[in-house]
Amino acid sequence: MVHLKTPLLNYINGKWCPSQATELLDVVNPATAQSLTQVPLSLKSDVDAAAVAAAAAFTSWRTTPPTARVQYLFKLKYLLEENLDELSRTITMECGKTFAESKAELERAIENVEVACGIPMLMQGYNLEDIARGIDEIMIRQPVGVTAIIAPFNFPGMIPFWFLPYAIACGNTSIIKPSEKVPLTMAKIFQLLEATGLPQGVVNLVHGAKEVVDAILEHPTIRAISFVGSSPIAHYVYSKGAAYGKRMQCQGGAKNPLIVLPDADMEMTTRIAADSAFGCAGQRCLAASLAVTVGEARHSFTNAIASSAQNRIVGYGLDSGVEMGPVITPESKYRIEGLIAQGIDEGAKLLIDGRNTKISGYEEGNFIRPTILENVNPNSIVAQTEIFGPVLSLMHLDTIEDAIALVNSGKWGNMACLFTRSGAAARQFRYEAEAGNIGINIGVAAPMAFFPFSGWKDSFYGDLHGQGRDAVEFFTQTKVVVERWPKDWSRQF
Amino acid sequence: MVHLKTPLLNYINGKWCPSQATELLDVVNPATAQSLTQVPLSLKSDVDAAAVAAAAAFTSWRTTPPTARVQYLFKLKYLLEENLDELSRTITMECGKTFAESKAELERAIENVEVACGIPMLMQGYNLEDIARGIDEIMIRQPVGVTAIIAPFNFPGMIPFWFLPYAIACGNTSIIKPSEKVPLTMAKIFQLLEATGLPQGVVNLVHGAKEVVDAILEHPTIRAISFVGSSPIAHYVYSKGAAYGKRMQCQGGAKNPLIVLPDADMEMTTRIAADSAFGCAGQRCLAASLAVTVGEARHSFTNAIASSAQNRIVGYGLDSGVEMGPVITPESKYRIEGLIAQGIDEGAKLLIDGRNTKISGYEEGNFIRPTILENVNPNSIVAQTEIFGPVLSLMHLDTIEDAIALVNSGKWGNMACLFTRSGAAARQFRYEAEAGNIGINIGVAAPMAFFPFSGWKDSFYGDLHGQGRDAVEFFTQTKVVVERWPKDWSRQF
Amino acid sequence: MVHLKTPLLNYINGKWCPSQATELLDVVNPATAQSLTQVPLSLKSDVDAAAVAAAAAFTSWRTTPPTARVQYLFKLKYLLEENLDELSRTITMECGKTFAESKAELERAIENVEVACGIPMLMQGYNLEDIARGIDEIMIRQPVGVTAIIAPFNFPGMIPFWFLPYAIACGNTSIIKPSEKVPLTMAKIFQLLEATGLPQGVVNLVHGAKEVVDAILEHPTIRAISFVGSSPIAHYVYSKGAAYGKRMQCQGGAKNPLIVLPDADMEMTTRIAADSAFGCAGQRCLAASLAVTVGEARHSFTNAIASSAQNRIVGYGLDSGVEMGPVITPESKYRIEGLIAQGIDEGAKLLIDGRNTKISGYEEGNFIRPTILENVNPNSIVAQTEIFGPVLSLMHLDTIEDAIALVNSGKWGNMACLFTRSGAAARQFRYEAEAGNIGINIGVAAPMAFFPFSGWKDSFYGDLHGQGRDAVEFFTQTKVVVERWPKDWSRQF
Amino acid sequence: MVHLKTPLLNYINGKWCPSQATELLDVVNPATAQSLTQVPLSLKSDVDAAAVAAAAAFTSWRTTPPTARVQYLFKLKYLLEENLDELSRTITMECGKTFAESKAELERAIENVEVACGIPMLMQGYNLEDIARGIDEIMIRQPVGVTAIIAPFNFPGMIPFWFLPYAIACGNTSIIKPSEKVPLTMAKIFQLLEATGLPQGVVNLVHGAKEVVDAILEHPTIRAISFVGSSPIAHYVYSKGAAYGKRMQCQGGAKNPLIVLPDADMEMTTRIAADSAFGCAGQRCLAASLAVTVGEARHSFTNAIASSAQNRIVGYGLDSGVEMGPVITPESKYRIEGLIAQGIDEGAKLLIDGRNTKISGYEEGNFIRPTILENVNPNSIVAQTEIFGPVLSLMHLDTIEDAIALVNSGKWGNMACLFTRSGAAARQFRYEAEAGNIGINIGVAAPMAFFPFSGWKDSFYGDLHGQGRDAVEFFTQTKVVVERWPKDWSRQF
Repeated sequence: MVHLKTPLLNYINGKWCPSQATELLDVVNPATAQSLTQVPLSLKSDVDAAAVAAAAAFTSWRTTPPTARVQYLFKLKYLLEENLDELSRTITMECGKTFAESKAELERAIENVEVACGIPMLMQGYNLEDIARGIDEIMIRQPVGVTAIIAPFNFPGMIPFWFLPYAIACGNTSIIKPSEKVPLTMAKIFQLLEATGLPQGVVNLVHGAKEVVDAILEHPTIRAISFVGSSPIAHYVYSKGAAYGKRMQCQGGAKNPLIVLPDADMEMTTRIAADSAFGCAGQRCLAASLAVTVGEARHSFTNAIASSAQNRIVGYGLDSGVEMGPVITPESKYRIEGLIAQGIDEGAKLLIDGRNTKISGYEEGNFIRPTILENVNPNSIVAQTEIFGPVLSLMHLDTIEDAIALVNSGKWGNMACLFTRSGAAARQFRYEAEAGNIGINIGVAAPMAFFPFSGWKDSFYGDLHGQGRDAVEFFTQTKVVVERWPKDWSRQF
Repeated sequence: MVHLKTPLLNYINGKWCPSQATELLDVVNPATAQSLTQVPLSLKSDVDAAAVAAAAAFTSWRTTPPTARVQYLFKLKYLLEENLDELSRTITMECGKTFAESKAELERAIENVEVACGIPMLMQGYNLEDIARGIDEIMIRQPVGVTAIIAPFNFPGMIPFWFLPYAIACGNTSIIKPSEKVPLTMAKIFQLLEATGLPQGVVNLVHGAKEVVDAILEHPTIRAISFVGSSPIAHYVYSKGAAYGKRMQCQGGAKNPLIVLPDADMEMTTRIAADSAFGCAGQRCLAASLAVTVGEARHSFTNAIASSAQNRIVGYGLDSGVEMGPVITPESKYRIEGLIAQGIDEGAKLLIDGRNTKISGYEEGNFIRPTILENVNPNSIVAQTEIFGPVLSLMHLDTIEDAIALVNSGKWGNMACLFTRSGAAARQFRYEAEAGNIGINIGVAAPMAFFPFSGWKDSFYGDLHGQGRDAVEFFTQTKVVVERWPKDWSRQF
Repeated sequence: MVHLKTPLLNYINGKWCPSQATELLDVVNPATAQSLTQVPLSLKSDVDAAAVAAAAAFTSWRTTPPTARVQYLFKLKYLLEENLDELSRTITMECGKTFAESKAELERAIENVEVACGIPMLMQGYNLEDIARGIDEIMIRQPVGVTAIIAPFNFPGMIPFWFLPYAIACGNTSIIKPSEKVPLTMAKIFQLLEATGLPQGVVNLVHGAKEVVDAILEHPTIRAISFVGSSPIAHYVYSKGAAYGKRMQCQGGAKNPLIVLPDADMEMTTRIAADSAFGCAGQRCLAASLAVTVGEARHSFTNAIASSAQNRIVGYGLDSGVEMGPVITPESKYRIEGLIAQGIDEGAKLLIDGRNTKISGYEEGNFIRPTILENVNPNSIVAQTEIFGPVLSLMHLDTIEDAIALVNSGKWGNMACLFTRSGAAARQFRYEAEAGNIGINIGVAAPMAFFPFSGWKDSFYGDLHGQGRDAVEFFTQTKVVVERWPKDWSRQF
Repeated sequence: MVHLKTPLLNYINGKWCPSQATELLDVVNPATAQSLTQVPLSLKSDVDAAAVAAAAAFTSWRTTPPTARVQYLFKLKYLLEENLDELSRTITMECGKTFAESKAELERAIENVEVACGIPMLMQGYNLEDIARGIDEIMIRQPVGVTAIIAPFNFPGMIPFWFLPYAIACGNTSIIKPSEKVPLTMAKIFQLLEATGLPQGVVNLVHGAKEVVDAILEHPTIRAISFVGSSPIAHYVYSKGAAYGKRMQCQGGAKNPLIVLPDADMEMTTRIAADSAFGCAGQRCLAASLAVTVGEARHSFTNAIASSAQNRIVGYGLDSGVEMGPVITPESKYRIEGLIAQGIDEGAKLLIDGRNTKISGYEEGNFIRPTILENVNPNSIVAQTEIFGPVLSLMHLDTIEDAIALVNSGKWGNMACLFTRSGAAARQFRYEAEAGNIGINIGVAAPMAFFPFSGWKDSFYGDLHGQGRDAVEFFTQTKVVVERWPKDWSRQF
């Protein structure tokens, strides 16, 4: 991979071009506090240029056969694999997570590319002869046109791939706005996209922040928007995009509970729970942020998770042995530590305190160690706020019914996990828990690329999700054709 | 069927109950101007009551097996068939269309019931073993909860059935607000729904107008809304529903072009075009309102369609021989006649003038005879306004490319039809025309119930449409479950 | 329902007509030994006549729209429901099972009719635009032509419905040969088929035995054959049909094991196991005929099942309170009692002996009471023979692995069931057990009509099964169409 | 690629090993008559060894996650692309077709690999909650076990790929027997399969002839067989495999008609027809071997096709400019020339005579130039025999109905093509022509890899075809699981 210019360039119409931004932001390594590069806060006019390019490219991209379109994706898979280490390092450097976490993230990105390689099968329509005597009907899937993807900071390498491969495989052209906090990863991935030889204008990259988001939402040329971020912003984006008549899919935040039944395998459960709560420093929408023990599970789980939290090795994600990195910004650290204090104020017991962490050699990093609040009141602010940091709230309840009621009382519905050996408990939970991604003895129930990433309630606004068949449907329009060809015309020339 | 009270009652929680409305509207036969009944303009509190009932019913309806749920639909199909004539008469009386049109409308309603009877197959999820070693993943479709349907006046018996059978077959409960102009049909159909023995609260009927619409849009309990109406209202509903975080599908208006190539079968084309333009008095979102001849088709088509328009028998839809009824209201008639005048003002030639129609015996009816404006300028107001009356605008172009360009220049994309003998022209049109419902030698390309009703552009806001698989997806949430069951647990008891 | 003539008539080309048989068989009530009617052993020439009728009917039936074809099935559902009691009585009278069992059988038949009502959705093909630039491809499902169904004696009212509704809904015409032991049920059902108004020749009924089977297998007009019977005959039919180049699906016998883990709910398990082993007097291909306890389950299960077997009320299926009827013929009783003796000779312990049963008032009936052989050697003849009677063999093993190995060692693979509370054991069993129908805490894992009836190994020859999507695929041929319509032709007239 | 030993080795259990054959055959370049290598006629014991290896490999291959299994296919795609030229040369050398034809063949092979990369999506089962209250049902696709592929000589690089990628992607292991006439291509492809790192035993190669075929058909371990060859052998294989109880798909020969309507584009039609009839020297099951003109098409088409045939450049496929190579063997050439003579004897007019061809420099090659017989009698032997050489029979008929009747009168149903501008004629043909692969203005209607290769009638025995979804279904068994987990168990620990 070649070196990237500073400030970062946009990639529009097959060319790397400077943003028209007047404002630049530093892209800062959250572990070292060093600036990695500068990102421009592009203007509406940059979005315009990208939309013009994408619209111009659409006409011929759309008529490129699907079998030809996926060749670029086959190539992309190989390029991503070849550059896996460098991309992983980039993610760790700008986003903070460990190198292993960065790799795992990219593997899911690649998996989405693989699934989108199946577009000649996945994009097929359906048909029936003789809906009336001699009249046939066919449904054809056609691309929607210019689409846009607005991505969050926590998975700079993966989340755009819930959408992008499907969007372009289906014949759309696309504009991506990565998070201005972590723009480097996508900048490097665009070098690979460029190397696949994709025709100009099919994919476009516009760096920036709110002005870019609003420009996308308001742009008459952009037909469909995929967003991932916090719930309030997801809601804003969904409302505004809808007000502009667009097709929208907006994924928001979460407060994911993890239920531990008395018959759970405690060693495994604790390990998985800790990975879920503290992996990626808790900065993922599938992090378990609430652990609920049922009955006898209370003591064994509490002790084990506390010990696991305490022993987690925190540090710079590129250093070997490190199990957890920093949170994204000082502001984020400040906010999280404030919520911990709030929890204590609200009566929770601070079982493990990860505040005031200093990592030797990385004194400027935004580190918070794993933190556990026990006896969190379900009605407290800390119980109902997405903390997005390495903070696990513990609660203890008496029955699985109580636990499910707690799950269902929340406003979010991204994930809910159960730990048990009981087939019956698993079935009841699967059936009743109001969340779109359910784990049974799983801590991060992230759907594979060939399944939809199914947030519910305030974790998702829209109906068709990212990944798999849902993405294909979102990025295509159904066209129904009814045809009559009277038989007696066959003999007329 | 039993007699219906005046004013009409709402049907909430399995009971017929008076609206809390303070205002009543007359329901007027558009052919005779006689009042048929009175409809209450229900209040927010009525919607509340319905939502409470629907939410209460959801818990047990959702756990009723799909095979049991569809038994009510099998029964409904038979009840609708048994009452086909009476329901048809009711539609004709309150809506104005001919008895044959009313029957055809109901047959499509029944077809949707039939398709929804297949829910045990259609609602299935998908699954894969070993997404990782020993870990399985399954996607389950579960109902979304309380849903609502807001219906327009032009197909009182059909349009709610693009949604309702799927909604309840999938395990949701539902609230319907019919158009306050034509509430009788749905009132009678609810008598049949009641007769199926559906548990109380599964379906609810709330009569009314804007206050009911807004109450539905704002109601926190209602999760998904299906709307059909004009584009501005569809846009309003889509925006507002999205602002309240809901899942939305909103179908709007249209300006449907019908292209006649020189090689078309003129006799058949004319007959079909006239039926499309003047059937249901032009008050349907799949009415052809624009006929475009290409090249040599000009003269033969113009003469033939003019003659067909002139000979169409206009009258009261219950009288035998009548081919076209009145438009829905005096206001509508006034608006349509105004648009005809506008067309003339804008330079169109009034080929056939249907204004100032008086039908003997129905002097108070809102009749307009078939009207044809020729040489309509594509940029004129009349060319770009949904007239929703029996007015056909004629244009003449030179090539199929010109015609497709015209189709694609419009803001709507509900339907576009081509008349030709050419397989190549059909393919080009099917491929390029930007409309979701395409007819080839078809005048009203209404998708069968097992296909989505696929409006595009400003004819539809959302992604999943009514009818068929789309409806099933709209009325279900995907729940993805990831399960790990370590093999060594199998031996532990 | 009208009375049926003796001897029974064939139904060919929409008419009830006498067989050309020279031989007649008595149809005997297995409980009373009274002759109910006589069935003709039709000749090859009768099959010829049916095939000619079916072929003649195919042309116009195939071009009848699917939506119209399913109307006959909607009607059939209602007729079957209306006549449920009489048909159930008929099944009990000729087949011996209890009235409740007969009704349950018919309910599954009706469920298959319901699923086949969804053919406009289920029969759809798929399609893709631009497989190469400007070239489209479409797969259309078309019917195969004349099909035949050869049915066994044990479910006279259900098994033909695994095939028939799909066959005709897909546009095929069909010939049914019911078992000559139980021809009355299908004779009565054909009266209902006639009452639906199905066009003549679409369904045809030919009574008889081996000559009819061979005539069907050899007949050049018959394209696809569905068979259910014992494995040796299934194998014969599969081989011979294939030798005549036909599309075949042949379901055979079974020896279904039921595994009881120590953590199973013993009360529920025993009840379910007894129903599975002794329901329908053990004469069903999903009867559990082998119960395997693992570890500690041994004693509690053995005692409980023995007591359950002993208390089962045996008698005439039309008498109230009766829980189990006779086996089909004296020969069958003789054969089953011989196998019990064989089991004892081979070293099994006769826990409960059901031989030499006499039911007061029905002394001539072919009754055998529930019988249990314990400590059956897996290698013994009785362990490896399909008994098809109310005989349960018990084995005791140490681990779930041993039990799965036993399941997988058999030549059949129709069903295997596990009783446990353990999610892990269920997963292991589901994953590893080599049988096509798996029950978890279920004794008769009969797939619903919207799932395939999935025998494996020697329980099924072919690939596409009966019921659901499989049946639709079996009864249709894929036709792939590749189309090129050069764009420049669009402008040529 | 490394050099291959002479005689060729089998590839069994991940090792190249000598056949136990006592007999060797020369592999001869049909253009030069030079021996390229020797192929062993392996024995039953070689098949045994392969089956043992495949069965042993199955256990762990089957439990390898689908996402991991497809990684080998992604790699294979790249290796095939990298070695495209060498493999193409090999095909041309042993099979005779031109280099361009060899490349095109391999591209379809690669396309099948691409489609099979989608197995994580394609292999999914389906499921439904609450088939009865609290009972769920799921259908899981599991691999069938050891499978075998028996391939013909005419597409040594492509035809095994209609099956192999799907077989192994679905978790099966496989044995391939290439044609003994063209074993080199598959020997080289197995070098690539080896290079992907596939675990030993997953794919196995056994060279040979009839003894190998019979050993495969009779082998108790082999569960499913895919065959492509002539119809008599396909019939033999289908019958015998069925007699051994196996799952079979057997593709046979063809006599493909191509219908030319008067409105066809004669220039394009002639070019396409000539490519179809003479491409691959007519040695393909989708070659047009019968051209039927309708009405006025007669003269223009006859002249043009004659001229096209005459001008076709025949020679060694590796020489530049060559458009057609030799037929496979001297025996084949002799047989084809005999059929030409037969045609003349039966009254056909020899329009173009390709017999007695000598190609300078390749005097020993099996060359026959394009040959056209006119006025072939539909009832003559030449009209009803698959010639499998560059011989086109011409007929002239009056109407499209006559032409369709001719198409449908044949015993085969592999392909039928229509040339027309008429949408109505295309629809009638698509609807009525009894062939599984239909071309409209297409000469070789070979389905893309994401569609089934759909022979009908004597062109195919079985129901599920090669390629796409059909292949996935053929290579998997449906396992239906019914689960009951009583809710009160959830509270018991």
